Amino acid sequence: MATVDYPELVKNLIAELKRLPGIGPKSAERIAVWLMQQGSDSSLSLSDTLSTAARGVVECRVCGFFSTEEKGCAICEGFQREGHLLCIVEQPTDILPLERSGAFRGHYHTLRGRISPLDNVGPEDLRIGELVRRIEDGDFSEVILALNSDVEGEATCHYLAELLGAFPGLRISRLAQGLPAGGGLNSADELTLLRALQGRVGI
Amino acid sequence: MATVDYPELVKNLIAELKRLPGIGPKSAERIAVWLMQQGSDSSLSLSDTLSTAARGVVECRVCGFFSTEEKGCAICEGFQREGHLLCIVEQPTDILPLERSGAFRGHYHTLRGRISPLDNVGPEDLRIGELVRRIEDGDFSEVILALNSDVEGEATCHYLAELLGAFPGLRISRLAQGLPAGGGLNSADELTLLRALQGRVGI
Repeated sequence: MATVDYPELVKNLIAELKRLPGIGPKSAERIAVWLMQQGSDSSLSLSDTLSTAARGVVECRVCGFFSTEEKGCAICEGFQREGHLLCIVEQPTDILPLERSGAFRGHYHTLRGRISPLDNVGPEDLRIGELVRRIEDGDFSEVILALNSDVEGEATCHYLAELLGAFPGLRISRLAQGLPAGGGLNSADELTLLRALQGRVGI
Repeated sequence: MATVDYPELVKNLIAELKRLPGIGPKSAERIAVWLMQQGSDSSLSLSDTLSTAARGVVECRVCGFFSTEEKGCAICEGFQREGHLLCIVEQPTDILPLERSGAFRGHYHTLRGRISPLDNVGPEDLRIGELVRRIEDGDFSEVILALNSDVEGEATCHYLAELLGAFPGLRISRLAQGLPAGGGLNSADELTLLRALQGRVGI
């Protein structure tokens, strides 16, 4: 006797949901069953929103943030940006936290990844060619490397610092490393403390 | 100056995803951004699977499990079911674990919930009318109450036991309560131990 299982349509949905980041087999099953129990309106609404976004959202050709054909890029076409500052980030998602900090109002450039030989990601896989052309054509006085402070981020930093060092008069900086705000000494790891000491500033 | 945020289409998608069970604001953002970065094919495939399932999957009018118009219900139309046994569960998702246990090959009836006055769920909100008609028209000798062993499940059990007690000759049983398989005494709570003692069986 065949074992009873969900109908094929539900199993297909579970398989698709399982591919999403952070969604395991149990969560995928729970979400699929929840959607089926909500009635079809709820699923069709999610399905519509998803396909509309998939068709409408494009990568901004300049900075790499999410953009739409109709409205253009909220960053590149935004008003009152400081035109001589360029902040380089790994992913488009890194832009919003920086914006929310309110400490930066220049332009952004998204690499869409970082150099990682273990994952077969080299400089040619990133938006580095676009970056060089942008600096050649633009009027930037400073480039801020706002990459993650892990091994791959460091390696990408070094590569970019060397590459961009060829531009005369272009200042290259990177985010400070040290104790996070509100972080106690006893919860900081050794490397963080080392960098906080190395980067100590006079008061 | 306006703060930069995701395009409206992405924000709509995040809002929809946030409604899913177990998905918080952070997960919804991560999934939406991941989908947008995967390229539109991936999102359109998920969107299609979702709308196909939403349109194709229906509730079986007999047992309440998921079913499709074309293929019918895998349980009610399955072969070699023991026609005199009926197992009552709260949700359609409770059916598959019971099936996988291999210990039951009778019919199922899904209540689609349980009696819970705090949530304004009374007997009339559940598939209890359908259950009574099914027992009246059917040829069942035993009804097994396989509800959760929490307060609402217990209350629903009592209600059903009283209601179905009116059928002469119908045996009413419920799942045994006690130590879970592989569970040690020191990890069992007091209520579980109490029930395991009350339900002790001679060997």
